[in-house]
Amino acid sequence: MNNKIDVKFEFFLHGADYNPEQWMLTPEILDDDIRFMKEAKCNTMAVGIFAWSHIEPDEGKFDFTFLDTVLDKLHENGIRAILATPSGARPRWLSEKYPEVLRVNENRVRNIYGFRHNHCYTSPVYREKVGQVDKELASRYKKHPAVLMWHISNELGGECHCSLCQSAYREWLRKKYNNDLSKLNHEWWTGFWSHNITDWEQIESPSSIGDMVLHGNFLDWKRFVTYQTTDFLKHEINILKSIAPDILCTTNMMGPYQQLNYWEMKDAVDIISWDSYPEWHSNRGNELEAYSIAFAHDMHRSFKNRSFMLMESTPSLANWFKFCKLKRPNMHKLSSLQAVAHGSDTVQYFQWRKGRGGVEKFHGAVIDHDGHGYGRVFEDVSQLGQVLTKIVDIVGTDVSAEVAIIFDFENRWAIENASGFQNEDKKYKRTCINHYKQLWKSGVNVDIVNSTADLSNYHLVVAPMLYSVSQKAIDNIEAYVKNGGTIVATYMTGYVNENDLCYLGGFPANQLKDVFGLVAGEIDTLYPGDSNFVNFGNDIYAAIDYCELIKPTTAKCFGTYKNDFYKGTPAFLKNTYGQGTAYYIAFRDDGAFVDNLYSHLVKELNLKRALPLALPDGVSAHTREDSRYTYIFVENYSDYPVALNIGTGYTDMETNEPVKNVLDIDEFGVKVLKRLK
Amino acid sequence: MNNKIDVKFEFFLHGADYNPEQWMLTPEILDDDIRFMKEAKCNTMAVGIFAWSHIEPDEGKFDFTFLDTVLDKLHENGIRAILATPSGARPRWLSEKYPEVLRVNENRVRNIYGFRHNHCYTSPVYREKVGQVDKELASRYKKHPAVLMWHISNELGGECHCSLCQSAYREWLRKKYNNDLSKLNHEWWTGFWSHNITDWEQIESPSSIGDMVLHGNFLDWKRFVTYQTTDFLKHEINILKSIAPDILCTTNMMGPYQQLNYWEMKDAVDIISWDSYPEWHSNRGNELEAYSIAFAHDMHRSFKNRSFMLMESTPSLANWFKFCKLKRPNMHKLSSLQAVAHGSDTVQYFQWRKGRGGVEKFHGAVIDHDGHGYGRVFEDVSQLGQVLTKIVDIVGTDVSAEVAIIFDFENRWAIENASGFQNEDKKYKRTCINHYKQLWKSGVNVDIVNSTADLSNYHLVVAPMLYSVSQKAIDNIEAYVKNGGTIVATYMTGYVNENDLCYLGGFPANQLKDVFGLVAGEIDTLYPGDSNFVNFGNDIYAAIDYCELIKPTTAKCFGTYKNDFYKGTPAFLKNTYGQGTAYYIAFRDDGAFVDNLYSHLVKELNLKRALPLALPDGVSAHTREDSRYTYIFVENYSDYPVALNIGTGYTDMETNEPVKNVLDIDEFGVKVLKRLK
Amino acid sequence: MNNKIDVKFEFFLHGADYNPEQWMLTPEILDDDIRFMKEAKCNTMAVGIFAWSHIEPDEGKFDFTFLDTVLDKLHENGIRAILATPSGARPRWLSEKYPEVLRVNENRVRNIYGFRHNHCYTSPVYREKVGQVDKELASRYKKHPAVLMWHISNELGGECHCSLCQSAYREWLRKKYNNDLSKLNHEWWTGFWSHNITDWEQIESPSSIGDMVLHGNFLDWKRFVTYQTTDFLKHEINILKSIAPDILCTTNMMGPYQQLNYWEMKDAVDIISWDSYPEWHSNRGNELEAYSIAFAHDMHRSFKNRSFMLMESTPSLANWFKFCKLKRPNMHKLSSLQAVAHGSDTVQYFQWRKGRGGVEKFHGAVIDHDGHGYGRVFEDVSQLGQVLTKIVDIVGTDVSAEVAIIFDFENRWAIENASGFQNEDKKYKRTCINHYKQLWKSGVNVDIVNSTADLSNYHLVVAPMLYSVSQKAIDNIEAYVKNGGTIVATYMTGYVNENDLCYLGGFPANQLKDVFGLVAGEIDTLYPGDSNFVNFGNDIYAAIDYCELIKPTTAKCFGTYKNDFYKGTPAFLKNTYGQGTAYYIAFRDDGAFVDNLYSHLVKELNLKRALPLALPDGVSAHTREDSRYTYIFVENYSDYPVALNIGTGYTDMETNEPVKNVLDIDEFGVKVLKRLK
Repeated sequence: MNNKIDVKFEFFLHGADYNPEQWMLTPEILDDDIRFMKEAKCNTMAVGIFAWSHIEPDEGKFDFTFLDTVLDKLHENGIRAILATPSGARPRWLSEKYPEVLRVNENRVRNIYGFRHNHCYTSPVYREKVGQVDKELASRYKKHPAVLMWHISNELGGECHCSLCQSAYREWLRKKYNNDLSKLNHEWWTGFWSHNITDWEQIESPSSIGDMVLHGNFLDWKRFVTYQTTDFLKHEINILKSIAPDILCTTNMMGPYQQLNYWEMKDAVDIISWDSYPEWHSNRGNELEAYSIAFAHDMHRSFKNRSFMLMESTPSLANWFKFCKLKRPNMHKLSSLQAVAHGSDTVQYFQWRKGRGGVEKFHGAVIDHDGHGYGRVFEDVSQLGQVLTKIVDIVGTDVSAEVAIIFDFENRWAIENASGFQNEDKKYKRTCINHYKQLWKSGVNVDIVNSTADLSNYHLVVAPMLYSVSQKAIDNIEAYVKNGGTIVATYMTGYVNENDLCYLGGFPANQLKDVFGLVAGEIDTLYPGDSNFVNFGNDIYAAIDYCELIKPTTAKCFGTYKNDFYKGTPAFLKNTYGQGTAYYIAFRDDGAFVDNLYSHLVKELNLKRALPLALPDGVSAHTREDSRYTYIFVENYSDYPVALNIGTGYTDMETNEPVKNVLDIDEFGVKVLKRLK
Repeated sequence: MNNKIDVKFEFFLHGADYNPEQWMLTPEILDDDIRFMKEAKCNTMAVGIFAWSHIEPDEGKFDFTFLDTVLDKLHENGIRAILATPSGARPRWLSEKYPEVLRVNENRVRNIYGFRHNHCYTSPVYREKVGQVDKELASRYKKHPAVLMWHISNELGGECHCSLCQSAYREWLRKKYNNDLSKLNHEWWTGFWSHNITDWEQIESPSSIGDMVLHGNFLDWKRFVTYQTTDFLKHEINILKSIAPDILCTTNMMGPYQQLNYWEMKDAVDIISWDSYPEWHSNRGNELEAYSIAFAHDMHRSFKNRSFMLMESTPSLANWFKFCKLKRPNMHKLSSLQAVAHGSDTVQYFQWRKGRGGVEKFHGAVIDHDGHGYGRVFEDVSQLGQVLTKIVDIVGTDVSAEVAIIFDFENRWAIENASGFQNEDKKYKRTCINHYKQLWKSGVNVDIVNSTADLSNYHLVVAPMLYSVSQKAIDNIEAYVKNGGTIVATYMTGYVNENDLCYLGGFPANQLKDVFGLVAGEIDTLYPGDSNFVNFGNDIYAAIDYCELIKPTTAKCFGTYKNDFYKGTPAFLKNTYGQGTAYYIAFRDDGAFVDNLYSHLVKELNLKRALPLALPDGVSAHTREDSRYTYIFVENYSDYPVALNIGTGYTDMETNEPVKNVLDIDEFGVKVLKRLK
Repeated sequence: MNNKIDVKFEFFLHGADYNPEQWMLTPEILDDDIRFMKEAKCNTMAVGIFAWSHIEPDEGKFDFTFLDTVLDKLHENGIRAILATPSGARPRWLSEKYPEVLRVNENRVRNIYGFRHNHCYTSPVYREKVGQVDKELASRYKKHPAVLMWHISNELGGECHCSLCQSAYREWLRKKYNNDLSKLNHEWWTGFWSHNITDWEQIESPSSIGDMVLHGNFLDWKRFVTYQTTDFLKHEINILKSIAPDILCTTNMMGPYQQLNYWEMKDAVDIISWDSYPEWHSNRGNELEAYSIAFAHDMHRSFKNRSFMLMESTPSLANWFKFCKLKRPNMHKLSSLQAVAHGSDTVQYFQWRKGRGGVEKFHGAVIDHDGHGYGRVFEDVSQLGQVLTKIVDIVGTDVSAEVAIIFDFENRWAIENASGFQNEDKKYKRTCINHYKQLWKSGVNVDIVNSTADLSNYHLVVAPMLYSVSQKAIDNIEAYVKNGGTIVATYMTGYVNENDLCYLGGFPANQLKDVFGLVAGEIDTLYPGDSNFVNFGNDIYAAIDYCELIKPTTAKCFGTYKNDFYKGTPAFLKNTYGQGTAYYIAFRDDGAFVDNLYSHLVKELNLKRALPLALPDGVSAHTREDSRYTYIFVENYSDYPVALNIGTGYTDMETNEPVKNVLDIDEFGVKVLKRLK
C-alpha cells in the first residue's frame, strides 16, 4: 500500500447508519440518541440513506427541516455525518407517475413497486429525478460542518432488462465492437446453433425465456451491467462534485459480489467502503469465516491500495442470517479490529437504532427496542469506541503485502457460466480462498488483485483456476515470471479468452505453456466422495474433484498421480522461466496440500510474517505500518485462550505496556501491538 | 362446552360426499348405491358439491331433473341430504364469458380455467351468478324432506390479486384506518426504505414482483382475504336464508389452515364442520399424528364451543398423500371415534363412490371401482355404522375443558412473515402442538382459543410463542392471571403488536413484564444439532433452537442455563401476579421438559382427567358428558394391545356390559365407556 | 429381427457431426480435418445440422458455396455425408420478422429468440420457411455423390402452447372424437369438479395456471404433441422425397424420451437413429448404466425390428454431464460395440471438432482444441475404426429375440400423471429396466415393444406396471397367453383404460382377471425404508414400495406376505390360461426376486443365450446373426479382467484366430466372436 488515501481521517470513524426519519412521531428520540452516541464513543453517523420520500414527499416539493435539525444536532455534539444520496429506494409517487423507472426482470416481467433497488439505472427519468434530489442535497449541505463525505446510493446491484436497457446495451456493444457485427459474431461464436446476428436490433440480454448460454453475450451483458451501474454512480457523483467539489464520495460495496466487477467501478469513487456481515459461531466454524472475511477485506483494500472504510457491520447479528446466533463475548471487538487490521480506518454499523417495523427491525443495532443502551451490545460498542481511541496512531497507516492472489471477477463469471467439468458448482471463489488460507494462518499480508494488475512488486502471485484469461493478462503474467516472480497456478488455467472462446493450439494459452513448461490435456472430473492420490516422495495427498492430465515440456515433476489410468503421470510441476519460477498444481486438494505448499513457499521466499512464530489453529496475525512502527493485530478466533511466546520488543497499544515474552489472548480475543521497525 | 348446538341431531350423521352426476351414463348405480348405503348404516349424504355445470349446463338454463331423483330416492330410503351450493368449481361457460371471475395470482398473472376454487371472491359477476344458482336451489329444495342443512361451497381458500380485489382491499383499508393515510403509514412503518404511501391508489397487495415484507401490508392483506372470503360466504348464506330461513348452514374448514383466520369466519355459519385427513401409519409415528389431529378437532369444537361436524374423512387413504399407505385393521373405527371423542356428532367421508376418472379417483371411498361393497373398507364403514348406533346417547353431549391453549392465527402469520431468529421455519404451529401433547397424553380435555378469547373459566392457559399480541390481548391475559389464572408462556412473547410493530420499552410488552415478572433481552438462535442445557436442581434438560436471555424482576428462577456465556442466568421462571401464577420458559425444549412441566401442572392444578391412572405410551382418553354420565373414549394408537386396570364403575357402551376392572384394547383399538357422574 | 433394413450399408458407418461453418474465418481447418478423418478411419460425416443461418443468411438469399466445397472435398476423399435439414435452430431474422414461430410455454408466455428447438411445429410460416430451405437443399444435392441420406432436423422435442397450437389441438380432438363433445366429456370424465366442456373453444392444453390433472386432456395433449411433431417431420420428408425420392430419411431420437411416443413417429422415417450418452464410471456403477443403455438400444432396434443407427455418441464425455468424468481406457470401444451388439450398423459421434465457443465447446470430440489428433481420444477413435473394418461381416445382420418387454410410452404418461400410490416417482421406467436386468446378465436378447405389438413370436413377454391398457392391448395380451405364451406382470396392472378411466368390475381389467386368475384389491404403499417380506418355501424376499392385496381365482400361489395385516395372503401367483402361463408379482422387489425369477424362466423356457455359461458380474453377451454365423459380443463392464471358459468353436473376429477354450477380456474390454450355426 503505497499511497495515502486522499481523505486522512484524524481518528477512526466509529458510528452507524442513522435513520431518525422513521421516528417522526417521537422526535424526542433524537436527543436520547445523541446522548447515547457520545457515551458509546461514536463519532460518525451515516444519514439520509433511504430518506427520499421524507425529503421529497411529493414530486419537486422538498422538505429539509428535519434533516437540518439532525445534522445541526450532530454537529453541535461533535458528531460527523456521512450524507447519503437517497437513490437506493424510490418514493412511491415516482414509479406511480413514471413506471419506466421500475426494473424489468430477466424473464421480461416488469416489477411493481416494492423492496429497494428496484429501479432501472438506464431510465432518463430516474436519472433526472435522482439528479434533482442530489442537487438539492448538495446545494443545501455543501458547507454544513457536520458533513464529512457523500455516501452514494446504497449497495448498488441487480440488473434491469427493460427496452431502455436493451437499447443501451446494443449501443454499448456497437461501440465495443466498432460497429462491426462480424467481429461480435466471431467473439460470441454465433455460428454455433445458427445464432448469427444480422442486425444489432436482434440482440437481447440473457434470459431464461431466451438464451443464458451464449457465453459471449452473457459476459458482455455482465460487463454492460457493471458499466451502466457505474455510469449511474458517476451521474450522481458528477452532480455532487459540480456543486461541492471538495467533498469526497464513496459507495458501499458488498465483498466478492457476483453481479458487479468492482475493479471497473472502483475509480469512480474517492474511497472504497464495504458492508461486511460474517456469520460468526456458525456450524462452519469461525476459522473458515475469519479467513473468508479477511480475503474480502484485503480485496477492498487492494481496489485502491489504500485504507478503506468498513461502512456497515452488525454490532450483534443480521436478522437475515439463516440462524441468528448471538455474537459471543469479545467477538465484537475481534470482528471490528479484524477490519482495521486489514486496512479499514472505520468501524461503522448498520444500524444505530432498531426500527419498530420493517424487515430489518430485528437486525442488530446499538440501541435496542428497549430504548436505552445498557445491554451487552451497547457495552461492546462502547468498549470498542475506547479501544479505537487507544490505537488511533494506526489511522492512515499502510498495509504492505508481498503476495497477491488473483481473484478475477470476469473469470468468475466465465467459470460459473461455463458448461463442463462439473455443472453444479465449480467453486472458483472457494478455491481462491482456500489458497489464501495458509498465508493467512502464517501471518502473511496478501493483496487480492485481478489478472491485469501490476504484479511487479510481489514476491509471490497465486492464480487459482485462471480459466478465462485475456492476451493482456497472459502478457502480464509472463512478464512477471520472466522478471523473477514466482507464480502458483492450477488445473483449468488459460482455457479461454475473455469472451469464453477456447484458445487453440493446446492449453494453457499461448506463452503460458512456456511459463509453466507444460501442455495440459484432458481433465478428469471426479464424483463427490471419490478421490485419487498424488505421490510426493514419501508424502501422499488426496486429489478430489479435478485431475488434469498434463505433459511437461521444460517443467520438472515433483508429484505424480497414484491411481487410475493416469497413474504415474505428473500432477505437480515446477518450471523455471526467465528469472522466475512457476508452479502448476494439476489436481484439486485444497486441504493439506495447498497448506503445505504455502508453508513451504513462505519459508523459501522468506515472506514477511506478522510474528516470527508458528501460530496455533484459529489464530492469525496481520500488520499495518508507518515509517516508524509495525502495528500487529493478533487475532484468536478459537473458543479457548491462547498464550504466544512472542519474545520482547512489543507494546500492547491498549495498555501501553510492554509485552513480557508471553502474549495471553482470551477466547475470541485480539491484541494490538506495536514494534519499532 | 356450555351450549347445545342449534341443530340437535337425533343420531350420529354417518355418510359421505355423493356425486352421482359423474355417472349420468350409468344411472343404474343410483339404486345400487342406496342399497349399499343402507347396508353400511349410512344415513346422510352430502350432495351437489361441484354440480354446477350439471344443474346449470348453460347460463341461466337450469336442469334439476337428476338432482330431484337423487334427493327423492334418498328420502324414500330414509337417508338425509346435506345440500351443497356449487360455488367451489365454476362451469366453463362462466369464465369463458366473464373472464373477470378467474383468479389473478400474486405475480399478477391471471389463471386460465382449471382445477377448482380458481375464482375471484370479489367479482360482482361471480357473486351474481353464484347467487342465481343458490336462489334456484333454495327455492326448489327448501321444503324437500331429505334436506337437512346447507353445505356452502367447499373448502374456501386461496386469494385473488386482480384489480377488483386491489380496489376492494383499498376500500377495506380506508375503512380500517378511518381514511387516515398517516395512521396506516405509521402502522405499516413505511418510513423504512422510503415506502411512505401518499395516495391510497399506491397500495398493492403483497407480491413476489413487489414486496412481501412490508409486514403491516402483509398482515392486513391476510385479514382482508379472510374478510372478503367470509363476505362471499355470507353472500351465499344471506340468499339461502332469505328463501329458507330455517335450514342451517355450514362450510367445511381445513384444520390449522394457514390462509384464513377461522376465528373471523366462524360466526358466519350456524355449525362448524371440517375435513380431517390424518396420515396414519406414516414414518412419523401414529402418536404424533393422533395428538396433532386431536389438536385440530379441539380447535374446531372451540370455534363455537359446541359439537362440530366431521364433514370429510377418508374411509381408506387420501390419494394425494405422498405415500398412500392403507389404514390398518381397527384404525378406521379409532380415527372416526377420535373425532367423536373431541366433539364431532358426525362421521362423514369423502367420498361415497370412487369416480372412474378425475384426480381423486384413487381417493379412498366406501364403494370401490369394483362396484360392490364387500371389501375391507366397506366392512370397516359398516362396522362403524353399527357402533355409532350403540353410542347414540353421546350425540349432542358436551366436551368440558379446564385448559386452553392459545393458537392465534394472526400471530402465526406474523411469526411466519417475520425476518429474524431462524429464517426457515420458526415452528409456531408445531410448538403449540408440542405443548398440547402431554395434556393429551394425560387424558385432559383442552380447548384451543385465540388470544382475545374469554379465558376466565380456564384453570390453565398455555400461550406458546405469543410474539404478536394486541393491547387487547395483553389486557385479556393480564386480567386472567390477576384473577387467579395460571399461564405458561415462552421465549418470544410480546415482541410486536398486531401490525408487527415492536413494542418499545423492553419485551414482553407492557403489563406482560409485570405478569411474568421479568424483562427479556437478547435471544440466541442455535444451529440445528446444537444445544445448550438447563439445570433444574438435579435435573437437566436440553435447550435447542432458541435461548432467550432474561432478567427476573419479581419472578423466581427455577432453572438456569448450563453453558455458554449466559451460563447460570435464568431459563425458567415462575411469578405470582395478583391471584394468579405465570410461568415463563425462556428456551425451547419441546420434548422432556414441556412434558414434565404439564405432568406437574396437571397434578398441581388438579385438572380433570378422563381416567384416574397413568396411560401407557400411545394411549389417550377423552370425555364428553351430559348431566348424568361421563362418556369416556379410550384410544390406543399403538400397534400392540394394552390392558388398563381402570377399576369399576364403567360400562362398555358397545356391549352394554360393565368393565371388570381391566380394560383390554386391541392394537389401534378404541373403547367407549360411560360412568355415572 | 426378420427384415433387412432398406438401406444396406456395405460397411459400418463411422464418423461424426461436422460443422465447419463455425470456422469460416479459418477455412484451412477443412483440409486438416479430412486428413484426420482418414487417419481415424472415419467414413461418414453428418453435415448441415444447425447451418440455416449460414446457408440462408437473409430471407430467401441462399448461399451454398461453402457447403458445396465441404461436400465435394468429402466425396473426393471417399467420405460420405448424412445431410441434415437445418430446422433444429432458426436464424434470428426468421423470428424477428415472424414472431409466431417462437414457442409459447405451458404458462402461456412466448419465448424470445435463443437456444435451439424453440419453435412452433404448427406455425404455417415456420413450415413454409423450413420447406423452402429443404427444397433448395434437395434440389441442389439430390445427385451429389457424397450424400448418403437425409438427417431431418435434430432431436425433435418439446411443445408449444400458442394459439395456433391450441386451434390445431382442438381440430385434432374434433377428429378423434368425431365431433362429439359428449364422448370427449365422458373420456375425460369432466363431470368431476364441474369441468364439462360445452364448446370446443373452451379446451386448453394443460397448464400450470390452469389444469394439469384433467388426465384425459393431459394424455390427449401428449398424443397431439407427438402427432404434430410427426406431422412436422413428415412435412419435411415429403418435400425432400418429392425432389429426391431415393434418398432415405432418418431423424435422431433420444432413448426413452418422456415427451414423444416414438412408436407413433417411427413409421415416418426410413431408418431409426438415436443419440446415446451413457455416463460411464459414475457413482451409480457401470453395470446399471450398461443394462439401462442396452435397454434403450433394444428399444430403438425394436421400433422397426431392424438395424438402427447410433447417430450421436461422445468419443470422450458430454459437457452437460453433472460430473464430466473421462472414459477409462477400453471403454470407448466397449461402449461403441455395445451399440453394434444390439443392432446398430453405425458409430457416429457428436462431434468431429470441438468448437471454440458455444455451450458445447467442452463436449468430447475427435479433434480437440489443440487442433491435432494425437491424443488418447483420437487414438481410441482410430482403433475403433480399425475394429469396425475387421467385423464388417456383421453389418446388416439380424438380432433375434425370444423375449419382449413391454415399455409403453402412453402407460408411462398415465402413471406419471396419476395421483395416488406414491406421488413423487412411481418408477415405471426404472422398473421395466430392472426386469430387463437379469435377462441382460444371462446373455438373452430382448425386444422392447409397446402393448399392442405383435407378441406371437415371443417365448416370454414381460409387462411391468401395465397400469393403463386399452381394450386392444388386453385382447392382444389375452390372445398371446391363450396361444401358449408366457407372461410376467406386476402390481398395478390393468387399472385404467387409455384415457386414465378406471376399469369397473375389479382390477386387473376385463379378461386380464382370467388371464392371471386373480382379482386385485387394495394396494398398500410403503414408506421409503420400510419393507415387508414374501415367503417362498424356504426363501424369503423383501417387498418394498408396493404390496398389492390379491385374491386368486384360478391361479396358484407360490409366495405369501410374511408380515402385517395381510400376512399369509398371496404375493406371487402363477396361472395357466389356455395354452399359456401367466405370472403375477403383487409386490415390488426389483432386486433379488426378479433376478431369480428371470434366471428361473431362462432355464424353464430354455431361452437362447449368447454363451452357454453363467457370466460373472458386470459381464454380458449379445448376439447378431446371419444365415451362417452367430456373432457374439462379450462385454466386460467391470474394472477388472475376466477369463471365461467358453470351450471351442469360436473365432475372435479382430484377430481372426480361434479362441482356445478360455476367453480373456480386459477390464472394460469387449470381444467379438463368431460361431458357425
